[in-house]
This record gives sequence, C-alpha cells and structure tokens, in this order.
Amino acid sequence: MRHAIALVILIATLPTWVFTQTSNYTQYVNPFIGTERMGHTYPGATVPFGAVQLSPDTDEQPHNIGGKYNPETYRYCAGYKYEDKEIVGFSHTHFSGTGHSDLGDFLIMPTVGELQLEPGKKGDPKSGFRSAFSHATEAAEPDYYKVRLDDENILAEMTTTTRVGFHQYSFGQGGDAHVVLDLMHGIYSYEGKNVWTYVRVVNDHTVVGFRQTNGWARTRTVYFAMEFSRQFEHYGFKEFAKQDYRGFWRKFDQYKDFPEMAGKQLRAYFDFGKLNAGDKVQVKFALSPVSTDGAMANLRSEIRDWDFERVRREGKQAWERELSRVGVTFDGRDDMTSFYTAMYHAMLSPTVYMDTDGRYKGIDQNVHSSVAQNRREGLSFTNYTTFSLWDTFRALHPLMNLIEPARNRDFVRSMMAHHDQSPEHMLPIWSHYGNENWCMIGYHSASVIADAIVTGNLTGAEAGAALDKMVETAHTGYYDGIAWYQKLGYVPEDKNSTSVSKTLEYAYDDWAIAQAARKLGRSAVYNEFSKRSENWRNLWDPSVRFMRPKDSSGNFLPKFDPLKTEGQGFIEGNAWNYSLFVPHDPEGLAEAHGGKMKFAARLDELFTMHLPDSFFAETEDITRDGIIGGYIHGNEPAHHVAYLYDWTDEPWKTQSRVRGILRQQYRAAPDGLGGNDDCGQMSAWYVFSSLGFYPVAPASGRFMLGSPSIKKAVLRLENGRRFTVETLNQSEKNVYVSRVTLDGRDLDRRYITYSEIMAGGSLAFYMSDKHL
Amino acid sequence: MRHAIALVILIATLPTWVFTQTSNYTQYVNPFIGTERMGHTYPGATVPFGAVQLSPDTDEQPHNIGGKYNPETYRYCAGYKYEDKEIVGFSHTHFSGTGHSDLGDFLIMPTVGELQLEPGKKGDPKSGFRSAFSHATEAAEPDYYKVRLDDENILAEMTTTTRVGFHQYSFGQGGDAHVVLDLMHGIYSYEGKNVWTYVRVVNDHTVVGFRQTNGWARTRTVYFAMEFSRQFEHYGFKEFAKQDYRGFWRKFDQYKDFPEMAGKQLRAYFDFGKLNAGDKVQVKFALSPVSTDGAMANLRSEIRDWDFERVRREGKQAWERELSRVGVTFDGRDDMTSFYTAMYHAMLSPTVYMDTDGRYKGIDQNVHSSVAQNRREGLSFTNYTTFSLWDTFRALHPLMNLIEPARNRDFVRSMMAHHDQSPEHMLPIWSHYGNENWCMIGYHSASVIADAIVTGNLTGAEAGAALDKMVETAHTGYYDGIAWYQKLGYVPEDKNSTSVSKTLEYAYDDWAIAQAARKLGRSAVYNEFSKRSENWRNLWDPSVRFMRPKDSSGNFLPKFDPLKTEGQGFIEGNAWNYSLFVPHDPEGLAEAHGGKMKFAARLDELFTMHLPDSFFAETEDITRDGIIGGYIHGNEPAHHVAYLYDWTDEPWKTQSRVRGILRQQYRAAPDGLGGNDDCGQMSAWYVFSSLGFYPVAPASGRFMLGSPSIKKAVLRLENGRRFTVETLNQSEKNVYVSRVTLDGRDLDRRYITYSEIMAGGSLAFYMSDKHL
Repeated sequence: MRHAIALVILIATLPTWVFTQTSNYTQYVNPFIGTERMGHTYPGATVPFGAVQLSPDTDEQPHNIGGKYNPETYRYCAGYKYEDKEIVGFSHTHFSGTGHSDLGDFLIMPTVGELQLEPGKKGDPKSGFRSAFSHATEAAEPDYYKVRLDDENILAEMTTTTRVGFHQYSFGQGGDAHVVLDLMHGIYSYEGKNVWTYVRVVNDHTVVGFRQTNGWARTRTVYFAMEFSRQFEHYGFKEFAKQDYRGFWRKFDQYKDFPEMAGKQLRAYFDFGKLNAGDKVQVKFALSPVSTDGAMANLRSEIRDWDFERVRREGKQAWERELSRVGVTFDGRDDMTSFYTAMYHAMLSPTVYMDTDGRYKGIDQNVHSSVAQNRREGLSFTNYTTFSLWDTFRALHPLMNLIEPARNRDFVRSMMAHHDQSPEHMLPIWSHYGNENWCMIGYHSASVIADAIVTGNLTGAEAGAALDKMVETAHTGYYDGIAWYQKLGYVPEDKNSTSVSKTLEYAYDDWAIAQAARKLGRSAVYNEFSKRSENWRNLWDPSVRFMRPKDSSGNFLPKFDPLKTEGQGFIEGNAWNYSLFVPHDPEGLAEAHGGKMKFAARLDELFTMHLPDSFFAETEDITRDGIIGGYIHGNEPAHHVAYLYDWTDEPWKTQSRVRGILRQQYRAAPDGLGGNDDCGQMSAWYVFSSLGFYPVAPASGRFMLGSPSIKKAVLRLENGRRFTVETLNQSEKNVYVSRVTLDGRDLDRRYITYSEIMAGGSLAFYMSDKHL
Repeated sequence: MRHAIALVILIATLPTWVFTQTSNYTQYVNPFIGTERMGHTYPGATVPFGAVQLSPDTDEQPHNIGGKYNPETYRYCAGYKYEDKEIVGFSHTHFSGTGHSDLGDFLIMPTVGELQLEPGKKGDPKSGFRSAFSHATEAAEPDYYKVRLDDENILAEMTTTTRVGFHQYSFGQGGDAHVVLDLMHGIYSYEGKNVWTYVRVVNDHTVVGFRQTNGWARTRTVYFAMEFSRQFEHYGFKEFAKQDYRGFWRKFDQYKDFPEMAGKQLRAYFDFGKLNAGDKVQVKFALSPVSTDGAMANLRSEIRDWDFERVRREGKQAWERELSRVGVTFDGRDDMTSFYTAMYHAMLSPTVYMDTDGRYKGIDQNVHSSVAQNRREGLSFTNYTTFSLWDTFRALHPLMNLIEPARNRDFVRSMMAHHDQSPEHMLPIWSHYGNENWCMIGYHSASVIADAIVTGNLTGAEAGAALDKMVETAHTGYYDGIAWYQKLGYVPEDKNSTSVSKTLEYAYDDWAIAQAARKLGRSAVYNEFSKRSENWRNLWDPSVRFMRPKDSSGNFLPKFDPLKTEGQGFIEGNAWNYSLFVPHDPEGLAEAHGGKMKFAARLDELFTMHLPDSFFAETEDITRDGIIGGYIHGNEPAHHVAYLYDWTDEPWKTQSRVRGILRQQYRAAPDGLGGNDDCGQMSAWYVFSSLGFYPVAPASGRFMLGSPSIKKAVLRLENGRRFTVETLNQSEKNVYVSRVTLDGRDLDRRYITYSEIMAGGSLAFYMSDKHL
C-alpha cells in the first residue's frame, strides 16, 4: 500500500500531459464498493454508459411470497450481495444503486456433469445450477469480472462492449459441459412478470430471442442474440408453466433439438459434450431494444472475433478515457479508490438504448431512429434510457453537464424524444427501457434541461422546443396533484398524498423552468414559473418552522410529526430534511426561519439531534447507515443541505459537514456506501464535494463552495480547456477554507460559476484547521 | 325471379365486351351463404384478399369451460351464426370457412344510454352491450354489411379498404352515445390467450394499440389505429384481470380520461355525450402487422376522408374487377348466386399481410420489407398470410394460378419468405399472422409452388430457389415422421400417428417436387422425389384394397376399421376416402385395385354405401352435411375422388357424380355449404367443377374433365386472352357429356391442359341425358 501511495505522489508531481498518458485511473476503481449493505451496486463488467451490465447474481428473491411483499427483494436490487456464498449465474442487465429493480435479464450459467435446470436452494449449491464461490478467487475491475465457480471448477470471466456481453468459461476439469440460459430469472420477479419469452436456435452456435415483462416497466421487451465459440451438440428447453393452448406444436418434441420455443417460464440449455480440463466455452451475448435482428447486427458490429483479451483491453481503455476527464490526487490510495469508484459509478447510467444503426423502441412502443431524426431536424443523438431523475437531477446531471456536456446534451435529447413519444406528453419522470415507470415525484427533467439551457449547452430552436416540453409537462393536470397545485399554489394532502414533497419539488422545478425561459427571452413563461417557484411558501408553517401538509381548504393538518415520513405529506424524507428543500431560494428560506442565525441553528439541530430508535423501524430503506444526527445522506432530499450554511454567517460549517460526510458516508470497501447509490447520484455528490464545490441549485449556473478533500484536481474539459483545483495546506484536519483564489485573485463569494470553470483556469483553496 | 332469369339470358346472348361492361357480378354474391350450419363463413365487409374482415360476431364462446373443450367454440369459427338473434359487436379479423380460429380482434360496439362494459348473456341483450337484431333489417354484399341493432336503435353499416375497416353508426334515437372497444374479445378464446394488450389515446378522436395473443398462433400481435369522426368527450378503461405489479401507475386514475392502458383483459369506452336522433358516429379502424405507427400510416394512406359511400363504392368496384375474371351464365339466378358467391369465397384469403410501405412481421418475429427484398433480389411482392394449405393446395391455388397467376406468384413469394424466416427452414404448413400453427399434415406448399413452376408462372433463379426450399422442407427429419418416412418409405403408426394420411400426402407432394425438378432440369431431385412419390404403395394392402397403417417393423396393424378415422392411421378422413388419395397416379392405383373395373366398382361402393349412425358420432366436424354414401365432400381428402372415374372406362360416372355434388352440396342459402369452406377450397371446387374441369393433380398441368353446370363461361385471362366454355343442350338432366371440342376439334382425351387454357380458345361440351 505504501508503494501505491508513493506512486500517486510521484504522478501528482508530474506535468499534466504525463498525467494523461500514464495515470491509469482504472486501477483505482473497485466495483465491489457498494455491493454490501445499502449501496445496491453490482460488481460485473460494463463499459461507460453501456447497454449491457454483465454481472453475477447471487440469489433470486421473488417480489412476493404468498401474496406478501418480500423485503429480501430490496436487498437484491443489483442481483449481487457481497455477503453471499453462491452465484446462481450471470445476467446481462442491472441497475446501479437503485432501490428497486426490473432487470436481471438472460441469466447464463455454465455447469459440468449432470444437467440441472433449477437454480436450487440458497445454502445448498448441489440443489441446482448455483455454485459456491469465494472472494479469494474473485476479481472486478472496469469492464472485467472474474470468479471461480467452485462447485463446477469453472473460471468465469466476463467483459463487454456497449451492447454485447462477452463470457469466457474455462473448465477446470473434464466432463459433460452445459450452458444454461434462464429466461425466467429476473430481479424483482413474481408470478406473471414474464409476459412472454421467445427463443430461436439459428444454427449450432447461434441463438436469438426476447423477454417481455410487465413489472416496473409495464410493457418492456429486451431482445438478444447469442453466439457460442463452440458448436453445441444438443440443446433443449424446459417449460416451468404450462400454456393452455398453443397451436399444433405437440406434433414435435419441442423440448429437444427443436429450433424454437416460446412461453412464459422457460429455461434453455446447450450441451457441449465432454470437454477436457482447460477447454473454454465463450459466449457473446448482444442486446437490442428493437428486434432479434437488431441484436444480431449489434453483435456482429461490436465484436467480430473471439479475442476476449482485446475486448477487455478496449473496455478498460474506454473507462480510462472517461475517468481521465477528472484527474485528481489524494494523499491516500483509499481516497483515490473512493474517488475513481465514485466517478465509475457516476458513469454507469443513463445507459445507451439504441442499436448500432440508431434505432430504438420509444415509450409509444414504436421503433424510432435517431438517424431519421437527424435528417429531419438536423440532429443526431445517442438515445439513452434509465433516467432516475428524482435522484440524478441533483448532482449527477450537473456533473455530466460539466465534464461531459455533449453526452448530457444527448441525455436531454433522449428525454425530449421521450416527451414526443409520451402518451401523456410529458418529459420523463423515471424511465427505463422504453417505458415510464412513474417512480417518485416532481418533474425533474425540467431541472436537467434548464441546466443545459442556462449553461449554454442546449441552444437555438432545440432549446426553445425543450422549454415548450417543460412547460407542457408542468401543466399536466392529472399528474400527481398538478391541477390542485395550479389552483391552490400547493398540493393538498387530502387530495394527493406526499403533498409537501411534491409542492416543494414542483416549486424548485418551476424555478428551473423560469431560468431557462429567462435565458431564452420567454418572459411570459418566466413570469408564470417564477411565480410558481414561490409556492414553497404556501406550506411553510412559521410556528414550527417546518413545511407542513395542508388540506384543500387551506388548513394545516393537525397531526404532525416532523420525524416521520409516512402519512405526513412526505416521501423518502421527513419534515426535518424536506423542509430545507428550497434549493433555489435559501435566502428566502433563511428569512422564513427568522434570519440567518436561526436558520443556522436549525441546520445545527438537524446535524446533531439524537434520533429515537423507533425512527429506524419506520421505513424499509433507511437504516442507521447514511445518517448524521437527523440528516439523512443515504437518501436524496437533503443532499444539498450541508451546503446551506453558505447562506448563513457560518459557511465553515458547510466545510466541516461536507468533509465529515465524505469521510463517514463513503469508504473504499464493499460496505462503503451509506445509502443506495441511486444511478450515480450518491457518487456524483462525492465527486463534486471532493472537488470543493456542489450544484445546490442546478440551472443556477453556480456551484457552492465547500471544502475540497483532494490535494489537486484537473478537469479536462470538452472544450479543450483545463480547470484545476489546488489545495494548499491540505490534511484530514485542515477542513476549513481560509482563502479561495480563482486564477490567483481572491474570490469574495461562496460560489464559482459554470462559465468560470469552462473558461479554464485555476481555483485554489487555502486550508486550515481553524475556521475563520 | 323470372325477371332475373330473363336478364341473365339476355346478358348471355350479348357480345363479350358488353358482358364486361355491364355484368354487375357483385349482385350475385350472397355473403350469408355458409353462415348457417357448417360453412363457417362470415357475412361482413372485406375487399378481395383484404387484411380487414369487418364482420358481426353473434356470440363469444370460450374454447374451454372448466378445463374442458367447449364444442360450441367450433360453431363460432367465423364469429357469426345465422341462427343467432343477437350481435355482441363487430370485430376486424375473421377466417373464412375454417374449422378453427384465432381471430376476432378488436370488437367494436356502439351503445346508447347507460354505459355497459360486459357483453352480457346470450338470450338477454339487456345484460350487456349485446343487441338483438333481425335478418329483416340486415343486408350483406361485397364489402358492405348493414344491420339494425334493435336494442340500441342504431343502424350499423360497414365497409373496408385493404387495411382499414370503416364503421358508420346512425343513431335512431337521441341519448348518451358510447362506443365500446373490446380488447378481450376473440374467437377461440380462453384464459391466458391474451398475452398483452396496449392502448394509447393519441388525441380526442384517435386511438392506437395492439393485441398480442398466444393461441393457434403462438406469438401473434395485431396493431391498430382508430379514428372517430366525432371527438369523444370522455373515455376510459376497465380491467377484467388484475395485474400483480406494474410500476407506479397507481398515482393516476388510469381508468378515466388517462391516455394509456395496458394489461391482459381490457375494454375501453368512448363517450360522445348526448347525440340527437339521426346523428352518426363513424370509425376508421386500421390494422398493421408491424406497429401502431404502421397502422396509422395505413389509415392515412387508404382513407383520407369520411366518405363512407365512396369507400363502399370502391370496394364494390374492386370485387367487380375480381369476379369478372370469370364471366358465367346459368339458367337460374340461384346458380349465378352460388357461382359468384363461390368466386367471392375463393377470393377472401390468403389475406394481405403488410403495411402500405411493404413492411410486415415475419415468423422470426422480425420486421421485414418486401421493398428491401425487391432491391436486393430484383423482386417486389405483396406479402400474404393465412395459408390453409392442406385445404387450398387442391383447387384454390390451382384456380388462382389460372385466373390470377400474378397474385398466386406473390402467394408463392410470401411462402418463400416464410421459409427464409422459419426457424425450421420449412415452407408454410398452415400459417397465419407471422406464425406457423402447424395445423394438419403434409408439406403442400410444395404442390402450390410446383404448380406455379410447371405452368411457367415461376421461372428462373426464383424457381430454382423455390425448388431448393421444397427439397429442404421435405428433408426435415423431425417434422411429422419424415425421418421414418425417409428411412422406411412410409410413416410407421407406432412412431407417428395418422401415419397413412401423412405417407399418402408426402408421396403426392414428393411427386409435385419431382415435376418441378423435371421442369427445371434438376435430375437428381427429380429422381429422388419420383422414387419417394411411389411410397403410397408401401401402405397398400391388396387383401382389403385399402391403405392401412404399418408399424415400424413393416407389419400392418391388426385392428383396422376402414370407416373410422381416429386411431386408424388417418386424420379428417377414413380409409374409404383416404385410400383413394393418390392423385398423381390414379392409373397405378387402379392397377393396384386389380384393374379399372374393380377400381370403378370401389368408387361405386364409396358413393352408394350406407353409413351406420355410429359413424356420425365419431368426430366433431363431420355431420350428415357433406356426405354422399360414404364419400365425404364436407372435408378435403376426397375432393378429387369424383374425378377418378376418368381413369376407368366409366367417365360418365364422374360427370353424374360431379353434377350431383354441385347440386347437393352447394345451395344459395345461409345453410348452403355442406362443409367448412376452408379458406375457399370448397368454393374453388365449385368454381372448377361448374366450369367442367378440375385439377386432380395440381402440378400436372392438367385439368380433368367433368360435367359443366354453366351455360357459358368466359375466363378473362391475365395475359389478355379469353378462354370460353360453352355447353350445348345444357339442362339439369343433361349431365352427360357426349362430345367435347377444343377450338372446334374433337378432344380425344379426358383432360385439357393449363397451356391450352392460357392460349385462349373455346371449349365446348355437348350435353346429353344419356351417357355414352
């Protein structure tokens, strides 16, 4: 470890160009971080924003058992739990860090000996195709995962391209070799989730098919094409649920060496005969949102040969390119690991959702083409999916808008296409795989798009059209109390629950729309939405200094417990945390509290309060992890709160709180994340805060200053410029900022702007163990 | 009636060009023929080979009741039973004349008053949206159907274009008007048949969606786009089966005025508010095999306005053009009606299965384009579906090959595309809607394609490729005993049931392949399949003069009942009928019988035997309808049998039998068909036999002479020539042919050839009441 630190220090002193050439940031990524406890990350292989996330699943947990919700399901959101001892197989789609899932498509498992077509029971690997494994023979790095399947004595390795998973199974002992393709397997599964699956055997080494599910996404189909490096000698299917009636297929033995099968609960197997010790079976497994033909074309265009090591190397290079957008140094390797793993986690989603020819399935269930759109509208874009916007509008998208503005623009274009295809004529709320799942609240696409417009990354007719879509979304009366919100200025709890959270988030999103409108000179929109952005005031109860739910007659509901969430007008956050969600007007919020001092005292109270034990029993996804006093970092609503001291006379408390959160909530270990990573939002918080600034109100064009934990950082911007952040007198204890300079001149404010960063230059923090 | 007959006689004496201009053949079509008892035809509106068959359904009969097959289902194959008193609605897809179904997609029903979302109980129209109706206010003609819905006092009218159904509902009384769209309704439905349905409300008069089913077709999706002539004021959905879990849609009231819904059991409704008496609601309803976008494009390109009468007129003109390909005269209007209704029924399917842009879904579930294929292979074709080949290879396709060779060539091209997309690499057996349903036996695509090749309608590289596909199909070992057939020369009953029927049909199909190979100079294929075509001999038992099942050791099965079908080695026909199925070698068969006389005596025995009552109880779809002695005309295996006397010294018995069948098995009345029309096969038999010749062995290039029932006929051939058939001394009694001339010269054989017909000219039959 000492050696590694020395290397880091050496690199940090080299000129920047050397840094770029030799840095090898991928060495610091540890994909196991977050795989234990709350992080809900997966350790498997994927390229940046890749459509395939090829990762081990250690258990299958049904969503319901006997009609009741099974809380174990939640733990398995990413398919893999570090504490598990067995692997059931390797599936191709995983969300990173979510508190819900829908994926785990197409589980592959190699076996030796007698064919087994059931996954078997946890703790009893002999009961099915599951295998014991140990962390001692497991390794994960960007776009590469390996593990030894102990029961089968098979070394499983995997890497990917954007749309193709590449498996390599090396058989440690001879015997009858099989590969199982499980089309039933899924994360968050239950009876009836598989609407339909279809498999077609094209020839003795090629298979295609699809899986159609009704889950979080209501009408979702994923197509695949799969190629083996060896010819299989036999293959077959087993149906685990009888279909009532299906034509005259009974004239065949459909279950053995017959080239097509369809149904709701299927597993397929492929027999390779007797292999010798050392023999390999490789599998290329391509996905498509469009068709099996699309999947086959993706497979052929992305991996033409069987060179596993080249694909692995190219995947690593792709990660190296992405990670090098922000070059940092810390004094410790663990911090380097935390930082680059955060960068890695921030670059897993949104994921590419189109074939190599630009075609994708829209939420209208029609196939669209980004190429056609290009010709018609002068646009070309990569279509993405998996927009966990309630989480990611906060820091993930602002980070992308800063270090990957071109990609973020394509995120925005994907969101605009979603709107155009949306039956509700709305921008995405939480969308995945050609579906809107309506998870969580607000219309935070508005924040992401407004940020892109305000910062000049989305311009012209496209920006105007985007503004129209934001306005249309914000006028959708039947969505989550908007009709009431428009009528009363708040969502009334008796008409629409979690009304306070909704009102506060609408007010912020409305402000974001107003900022975009101002930038585009659309004064009517600006006026309307500036007015709406004040709506947070309508639920402010000065008597208790909390936001509180009102009924439709305008009265606060009498029963009120600011520690509770359920039934109190909030969702995934209590009044203590949510009442501070006025990111666009902290000054106004401070005034409402009775001034800066009272506001700071309230923040102090939040961070230092002692929560009763009963608190932790309340909700499924809040544990002691992620909590500091009453401040909940493990969930998103308060992610900006540590920065609110910047609007008081005690900005040093932002500095110490931020450093405290960085230290306490993120560790370079499997259990190192204090909450769900939520598609990179938790990680993006880490990246920004480590650098010393954070987007409290995206679309403001400002980043509030905190306390950087890095020694030095360079942002290699897409416009070719570089923005550096230096700390002087940095240490674990020196968390206070005594002076900040921008390009050598003292900065007399508590923020820097987007344009200052994009202009390139140098930001220096003078660190101290004492606050001013 | 006398007046009509006079008119016919008048027309018959006019020169041919006048005939073409003024004939008005559509007047003779009665779509009700076959709607009662066994015909299984539908009375609704459709254009020739149209993709939409918009027709009333008089009941819904589930395929299973309490896990047991419900025989009532069979009666409702076409959705409509003439004897019923109520209509449940109008759906858009119907097979004509089948003994099975899978369709009835998208039932529409207009109602007045209180909204009802259940079809209700038969006999109790008040119990649901069903309505009483009477034949007195009902009318059907080519591409037009109307009926008064008595309970609702609504006049329902419908017409179609190829891909669009056009409804016109005239409200006879004021009141709250609704239109119900039932996505659950179907013909041959059962729990679990609807895999998924999806609806999207595009605007206040436009709706799109799809229905995905698992039935006769395993993976079938039909897309629609629907436009109303009036804006609806409200709309909504009702789910009749709860989904376990479906994202966060619960945040909406999805059931009222919310623009999308998906699930397994849905009905939608559209409220038009209070309409006045006389107000109309029109609906244009387009189908697509590809997507809702495809359906919308079909709608827009086929009907641009709301001119119902123009669409109706154009549909009628399209029928007039098709029917005028064969101009005939009879002495009676009933015969005219029977003939043109047979022509009409012969031109209902195969149906167009592609969007106006040439795209369609193949059986590989990918979207293909006939246009792309055009560019690549120099081909352009219209893709068709609904190939009931076990039925239609006999007479329907030979009729098409004669009077519509271009269309028949596109049928062949559709079959070839099917092969290319088939996981089994087989030509279609019985295919519909992008699926192979594997119904019945044989590989009769080979007969259809060979007929096209032998007659010179499919040539060059295309013919060569088609031959390869036939050969590949006939070599598919896992299909219905083919591996055994190849090994033993017959299908052994202990290995594969209905083995005699399969062996006989394979042998015929093999002969057809050999004929195509000979035409194309492919001698190896010719030799192989000529040899295979002799395989019927392997199951001939000279001791009883029947075909009999053998086991795989080469022994005839000891138990044998030539009257029975079930378990005797046959399907849909007993040994009495099936043993005569050697259409390619009647001479050989006669020899096997011990010569022409014994063969003729066996035929006599068949036509005159007395069947025991127990016979009629045996199978569901054979009743006393369609039976003459032991000859079963109501099913297909013996359709050629009446013509077999042509290979004996008693051809006059062919003449009298054919006339007897024409008279007994076809009547111009709803109950006028003696068996399932089977996608036009029964009707094509009628057309050929009325003209005086029949294709006993398609791909022979020969039509065997029978006894024409027409007075005069003109075939207006696609090559611009005309072939006329005249009868002299024609009457009901004069069924015997004493002399035949071709272009004035005596014909000294019992057949005419395809090329003789295509060359134009004149065939004259001299009729007599005495045989030679």
